[in-house]
Amino acid sequence: MRKSCIVLLIFFTVPWLAEAQTPAEGTAAGIDTFNRAFADATRHMDSAGILALWEDDGISLLPSMKPLVGKKAIGKFLADVMASIPGAKMESFEQRCFDLLVSGAWASEWCTEHQIVSIPGKPSFNGWGKMALILHRDADGQWRLRQEMWNQATALDPAAH
Amino acid sequence: MRKSCIVLLIFFTVPWLAEAQTPAEGTAAGIDTFNRAFADATRHMDSAGILALWEDDGISLLPSMKPLVGKKAIGKFLADVMASIPGAKMESFEQRCFDLLVSGAWASEWCTEHQIVSIPGKPSFNGWGKMALILHRDADGQWRLRQEMWNQATALDPAAH
Repeated sequence: MRKSCIVLLIFFTVPWLAEAQTPAEGTAAGIDTFNRAFADATRHMDSAGILALWEDDGISLLPSMKPLVGKKAIGKFLADVMASIPGAKMESFEQRCFDLLVSGAWASEWCTEHQIVSIPGKPSFNGWGKMALILHRDADGQWRLRQEMWNQATALDPAAH
Repeated sequence: MRKSCIVLLIFFTVPWLAEAQTPAEGTAAGIDTFNRAFADATRHMDSAGILALWEDDGISLLPSMKPLVGKKAIGKFLADVMASIPGAKMESFEQRCFDLLVSGAWASEWCTEHQIVSIPGKPSFNGWGKMALILHRDADGQWRLRQEMWNQATALDPAAH
């Protein structure tokens, strides 16, 4: 009897949760695909791969900089960064994302990232960051980045945020 | 004849824009109300007023800090900041918001803010910031803050972002 009540409770609760926030399976998979591709491209310092994940009118909001508006400006920034650290190698890159909200073709999430980059002739860069991302599902069904903001994070345990 | 074509073009274009991004009049007004209230509460250093604009499970992502999760943590942070600058006075506060995206009860925008704060016995604080905000329209019809990330901005001209 008690078990039936629990089953009944789940039955009535899950669709409400599904409508409110939990994305449909295909949507969650699509955003997971985006997240993996974004992390992989960053891990391989693949500027073209990163740029392909942006929408044409994407906006990147980085600290102490004017907003980068549009793929061209974002591509130039990535090229400038790569040119400023010749021979740099990403030794490790970890990314974890939280609090996914989906409404139609729009999604929001925030992620932590931890990167260790070796730079010839300099000490390794060991940095933590947080990102707030707005994603959009384009006409081809792919989720791409519409807006990104980044700030520094403490060396936190992402699992314990 | 040409005029008719333009009218026809507008007639068919506007509903599509409305569906894609441009919020309905009531929605835009509701978000404008939020933006004004958020700026006014900040301008008056009114921590209770700021906190009232947050959702209970809001998340604040500030630089070099762990995420502040929930109204209680955000309230404690605001109280700690106020306690650390006794006698401080906001001399001016300007906020401008851009790139509003609305989907159902969810909205995204980013804003610039410029604040000058006088602090007894210290030089005035003159700072620029950028904020990425996720808003949610609650059951009472009010838009409240679900997620905020902040980072430093250059002394930009907000009109020319």
